[in-house]
Order: sequence, then C-alpha cells, then structure tokens
Amino acid sequence: MEKVLDHGYVKIIDSWGSDESIIEAARMSMDGTFRGWDIEGKLLERLYSHKHMSPFEMAGLIIEVQAPIFIFREWHRHRTQSYNEMSARYVPLPDVNYIPTVERIMMRGKGNKQASSTGVNISQENAEVFRSMLEQTYTAQQDFYTACLASGVPKELARIHLPVGRYSRMRASANLRNWLAFLTLRNHPDAQWEIQQYAKVVASIVNEKFPKTYELFLKHK
Amino acid sequence: MEKVLDHGYVKIIDSWGSDESIIEAARMSMDGTFRGWDIEGKLLERLYSHKHMSPFEMAGLIIEVQAPIFIFREWHRHRTQSYNEMSARYVPLPDVNYIPTVERIMMRGKGNKQASSTGVNISQENAEVFRSMLEQTYTAQQDFYTACLASGVPKELARIHLPVGRYSRMRASANLRNWLAFLTLRNHPDAQWEIQQYAKVVASIVNEKFPKTYELFLKHK
Amino acid sequence: MEKVLDHGYVKIIDSWGSDESIIEAARMSMDGTFRGWDIEGKLLERLYSHKHMSPFEMAGLIIEVQAPIFIFREWHRHRTQSYNEMSARYVPLPDVNYIPTVERIMMRGKGNKQASSTGVNISQENAEVFRSMLEQTYTAQQDFYTACLASGVPKELARIHLPVGRYSRMRASANLRNWLAFLTLRNHPDAQWEIQQYAKVVASIVNEKFPKTYELFLKHK
Amino acid sequence: MEKVLDHGYVKIIDSWGSDESIIEAARMSMDGTFRGWDIEGKLLERLYSHKHMSPFEMAGLIIEVQAPIFIFREWHRHRTQSYNEMSARYVPLPDVNYIPTVERIMMRGKGNKQASSTGVNISQENAEVFRSMLEQTYTAQQDFYTACLASGVPKELARIHLPVGRYSRMRASANLRNWLAFLTLRNHPDAQWEIQQYAKVVASIVNEKFPKTYELFLKHK
Repeated sequence: MEKVLDHGYVKIIDSWGSDESIIEAARMSMDGTFRGWDIEGKLLERLYSHKHMSPFEMAGLIIEVQAPIFIFREWHRHRTQSYNEMSARYVPLPDVNYIPTVERIMMRGKGNKQASSTGVNISQENAEVFRSMLEQTYTAQQDFYTACLASGVPKELARIHLPVGRYSRMRASANLRNWLAFLTLRNHPDAQWEIQQYAKVVASIVNEKFPKTYELFLKHK
Repeated sequence: MEKVLDHGYVKIIDSWGSDESIIEAARMSMDGTFRGWDIEGKLLERLYSHKHMSPFEMAGLIIEVQAPIFIFREWHRHRTQSYNEMSARYVPLPDVNYIPTVERIMMRGKGNKQASSTGVNISQENAEVFRSMLEQTYTAQQDFYTACLASGVPKELARIHLPVGRYSRMRASANLRNWLAFLTLRNHPDAQWEIQQYAKVVASIVNEKFPKTYELFLKHK
Repeated sequence: MEKVLDHGYVKIIDSWGSDESIIEAARMSMDGTFRGWDIEGKLLERLYSHKHMSPFEMAGLIIEVQAPIFIFREWHRHRTQSYNEMSARYVPLPDVNYIPTVERIMMRGKGNKQASSTGVNISQENAEVFRSMLEQTYTAQQDFYTACLASGVPKELARIHLPVGRYSRMRASANLRNWLAFLTLRNHPDAQWEIQQYAKVVASIVNEKFPKTYELFLKHK
Repeated sequence: MEKVLDHGYVKIIDSWGSDESIIEAARMSMDGTFRGWDIEGKLLERLYSHKHMSPFEMAGLIIEVQAPIFIFREWHRHRTQSYNEMSARYVPLPDVNYIPTVERIMMRGKGNKQASSTGVNISQENAEVFRSMLEQTYTAQQDFYTACLASGVPKELARIHLPVGRYSRMRASANLRNWLAFLTLRNHPDAQWEIQQYAKVVASIVNEKFPKTYELFLKHK
C-alpha cells in the first residue's frame, strides 16, 4: 500500500498477464514459443509504435484507491475502467477530508495554471488561513451530518451537503492498454496536481509489473 | 426543456434514428424495404424479446442535464454514455444547490429504504429543521468559496469544500440500447428518488422519439 | 485444453479474481473482511438478482480458442471482449477446416431451426455427399492457395478465396460479467450449434473458477 | 452512395452533431453561446491537441457498407462501433465476390509489404492467371452452395465453404471520436489496400460533415 496526499492510498489488489504474455498474444500467428527479449523486444516495440494495441489488452491490473470525491469525479470519466465505490446511500461516509499543504496551495506552473482567478497569487498567510478555514468547515459539515443522521434524515439525503474534498474508496480494474491511456492524461502536467499524485503511484505499479511495456510507454509518449 | 427537482432540468439536444431505422438495420439481410408496422411490429418484438439488441444501437439521443453532483456521480457510472460536464477547475461553479422538499425528506418505501439510519422516521419538524440548516450551510459554503477565490486560492482547490448537493451541468450521449439500460436501473424503485425524477424525463423523451421500442421496453421489463 | 468440434479447442490462459473478491469489491463500503459464505452468499445473490453487476467486473478470464472463421465472426460481435487473432496477412493459414458430422448435418430443433431452406429435411445420403464434397472443396481451395503463394500472389490476396470453415486461432479476454453475457447468448438453443459447443466449454471454465457466481447465473437466467 | 472496389459501396444513413455542437459541448461551463469560428476555432484546436476528446463524442455517423468478408473481419475489430450485418444463417448470401484488378495484384510498397511470400514479385501473366482462377473458384463455390441448399443442407452449414472474398453488407454506427480512430488505423499505408479504399470514403464523409474537425485530424495525425 502506497500513501497518497494526507489520507489517501493506492493498493494493488490483483494483476494478470506480463510483458511476455503480451508477446505471446501478438504472436498468436507464429506457432512459436517465447524466444527471449533480444528477439521479442523488437516485436514489442513494433506493436507499440505502430499502435497495434490489442495485445496490451491481454494484461491488466486491479487497484484499491482512497481519494477525495473530486478526484474520483475525474477518474470515473475513464470509462474503460470498471469501478466499485463505497456508497453513502448505504453507509455513513467516514469523516476523512482532504486538506492541501501550504506548499500545494501556493504552487505555480502548469499543474496549477487554473490558479489565478484574480490574477494575483496567494500569499503564505492566506494559504494558511485557507487551510484553517477548511478544517473548520469540514468539522462543521461533519457535525451537521451526524446531527442529520441522528434526527432521522435518510442517509441518502443527509450526505448532500458533504464536500467533494471528503475521501471515498473504490476498486478500479482495467487492462494495461487502458491504464496507459489513464497515465497519458493523468500523469501529465495539465492534470490537477492531486490526481497526478495518484497517477504516479499507478505508473510505478505498471513499471513494476510490466517493465518492458512501461519503458516503451515512456519512450513514445 | 423539462424542469426537474428545484433547479434542475433535462433538455433534448439531438437524436438520430427511429423505430423504422431500427427495423431497417435488422433487416440488412432481406433486401426489402420497410413494409408497415403490421408486419414489422412483430420483427421488432422478436428482436427485443430474443435480446438481439444490436439494431437498437442504430438510434440514439443527446440530452443536456442540470443536476446535483451526487446524481452525476451515479449517472457517470453508466460507462456506455459519453459525457461533457462543466469543470470547476476552469470556471466558478454557480451558486445553485439542491434542497429537498419536506415531503421528499419524509418519504417512505422502496425509493427511500436506506432511510432509517436510526430506525426512527423523521418528524415533520425535523424535516423542516434539516431544510433550513441545509440552506444555511449552503450559504456559508458559498461565502467561504467566494472569499477563497478572492484571496487567490486556485479555483481547483477553492472548490473542494463545496457540497455534492451543488448543481452542475452536462451533456450526455448514448445509443438507444444504452438509454434503455439506464432506464432499467434508474427509473426503478430501488434507485434514489432524485435520479428517478431525471430518469422519468428521459423515459418520456424515449417514448416520444421511439414509441414502438419504448412500448416493448415497458412490456418486457 | 478442451477439444471442440473436429479440430478446435479452448484453453485457459489466465484468470483473475474469485467469488470472494467479487464480494470484497461489493463490500468496499463496509470496512469488514470476508465473513464466510453463509453470510456472503446472500449478498452475492442480492447483487446478482438486483443487477448490481459492477462487482462481477472485478474478476475475469483469458482463453485461447481455435475455431472456424464463421464462429469467430459471431464471437467478435461481443465487443466487450478483447481479441488477438492470427492474421492471414502475415502468415499462411494452416490447412485445417471444419467438416460437420452426419449427425450434426441432420440435426433438428431449435439450434438448427434455420435448417430447411427448401422445407425438406436432408437425407442421410445427402448429408454424406455434403461431407465428401466439402472435403474435396477444401482440398481444391488449399491447392489453389498454395499455388497462389508460390506464384507470388501477396498473402493478403491469396487468402481471399479461403472458406469461412477454415480454422483460425485467437486469445479472448473479458471480465466475468461479460463472459456471463456471452454465455446468455451463445450457450443458448437459438445460437448456432457450433458456437454452443464452444460456449459449453467456457461455461465449464466459469463454473470451475467462479462456482458461486455460476450457480446464480444458472438460477436467474 | 459511393462505389468501392468492384462491387462494394459506402452510403451515409444518418449523422448527428456538427463542428459547432462539439464546441457547445466543450463550453458547457461557460454560459455562452457560439461566438463564431474566429474565436471558437482556437478552442477546437486546443481540445484536439490536448487530447480532450470527449466533446468529439457528441457527434457521429451511421453508414451502410458493402464489402468482402475479409474486410469486415478487420473492420469489426473496432469495438467502439455498433454493427448490424446480414446473416448467412437466415438468408442465402448473394453471389457477389471480390476480384482484385491486375494493377492491385502487382502493387508494391507499404500497403502491400506482406506481398512477397516467396521473395519474388508476381508477373503480370501470373496476376492474370490468379484473376481467372479466382473467378472459376468463386463459380464452383457458388454452384456447390446452390446444390447444398437444394439438397436440404441447413443454410448455416451450407455456407461454411464460402470464401472470405464474398461480399456482405452491414450498417456501422460510431461517434466522431471513434471514426477518427478508425481513420488513423485504416486510412494508413500499413492497412490492407482494400480497407484503405473504404476508409478513404469514410474520410471524405467526415470531411463533408465535420470539416473543421477533419482539418485538425489531418494536421495532428
């Protein structure tokens, strides 16, 4: 399990296939067996660079992720992944919320280029005020949530004022081709900094499980 | 445009195909032309009841939807639809939030069976308190949001305490087969009452555009 | 490896997940561990019968299949599976062709209801003639194919007179939910008898790897 | 209807959306109306070049295609398209078969690089022999097919010796994003020459219906 942000994580649940089995699927036609990476490395590269991506669908990965709701909102737009997320209709959401660090709040550059709604950059003092206000707001929201549940408000309605910064948890499954597509968009300076942190962990898992493929991904991206 | 909940709506943007064009696609093999519903009605029914669903992929619908974020969270799990949603990374979210009616809060039965976290049902008085507290909370959240933006907090972070009851807006596109799958799950007593209200509007649009197919859907569901 | 028809087979390449991991994914919300099938069996059934199918996407299966081209033509219409097939553009297709048995040719009933193009049923004698003519035709096709390749006709053109009864080979990957959808349509009396034989082997693999889920599939189909 | 190869065609059945509606979907967030291509052209380009492809899913195209089976075999690997094809289980396939021209058979270069199974190139004489043999083979196959059907062989078995060069017919539906992915692979020198001819017609339809998007596609491919 790899920690991400203040209360999140990414954990490998399952994986299937390997760099070798990708080659085997691609060589369906050739009545041969795996002949070592000296030879097969070139085939793998040719597949990748010519966009013959179907062999990369013969491997895959399931992970468990804890992340704020606003990250899941972006993540779930990757429609080739399968998801199972905890549901606030059925269980009270745990009181775990995301508070960015001062460094993060003051960050500049591409990952934060939507930053300046006013054209000015935030001061360290204001960043600290934001953090502390955020904490108070989260506390107030949780107090209200607890009170709602106690007074008989249905769970599915009691939750509606909860913030998108609250953590939720899910499992996500996809084949390798689709994980690479996820990395292309999310381990990228244009993506929000927070989802990049999750994507970096996914990248390291892909690298660990499918090192030859990941090397090609880096080379051709 | 059809109003839904307190501030939501569903609006038809585009549609393609028809009950007739579904038949035509199914009869690809038969070198004939459309021969009137007396004859073709039976073919449509046979397709539907035998689960030959591919002809129902030859028609479709694009709608625009304004709904609270917690509804979009459920909606986006339908991964066969295409989505474009407004992004709080780029523009400030308008201050429009969902407040359920007292009747809704006190509702019983299947659509609300996750209601009783405490085993007790909510009183009308408590329902009214919930509504008014919700309104105050929304106002406080908006004040904080505005202050954040003014003090230079990046938009993509200023939003993280915003509630899942806040309205957002999207366009959703799917073929008819997939809209029927959506209706099966969401225009259903097990679905949360709020998404059912949206699904009912989708159902009436499907009925208007594809009346023969919708009739079969009702008959076989 | 399980033999199918005269020269086909189905072979398990990989699988992931289990009945237990489906439960785990569904219980993402409940902060608990697997509590034995006495308890969890009911949850699995509730998921299945309420069409909460996403947990069944957290398990899957990759198989290798050798089958005639006309079967692959039907199989590939299941667009939720990933495929890698040998390509006759790159390698000469092996000379392996499907010849149905006399019993198969004379078969009646649902699986063969498209049988009587003339209204008459085929005699045993004619069935035997068909088999022997088929063999001669296949031989003539292969002779022509070999001659084409020898005279310099490009592989991708030399193949175009080859019959859809010729065997090809592929790997197919899908999650469990989609394999069940495959079985619903293909292990069904309406499907062509030949693909049913393949579907029966897939069913036995699913039963072996995911026995609790397969039991529910049988019960609710 | 545009003719392709000797007996094939591509015909537009339906389309939805436009370059303008792609912009509208992308600007979901901006509370504005379409402001002319001087302004919006830059947005379209930014979407495309930054791989924000979801707005391009808000438009689409349905075509009818008549093509040899070996082409459909490649085409159907595009799993994001919806298909309805005539079925030889239910109706006798018309006796229409693909015979390449001499020029095509002798073609060199990328689109035919799998050509030389023997290392030699085919002579014009041999190309003509191939054509004439192909014609004879097709005739013999059709005679056998007719005889089979007459003697009571079920349609679904009578067809199994029919060649992959025989024409079939289908409708194919996809959104614009997926049609562009189709063109990337199939209107490409690496694709078999025959499918390139179909892809060129698809390209001209896309160009006609979505000229701004097609221009970006050409620029960034």
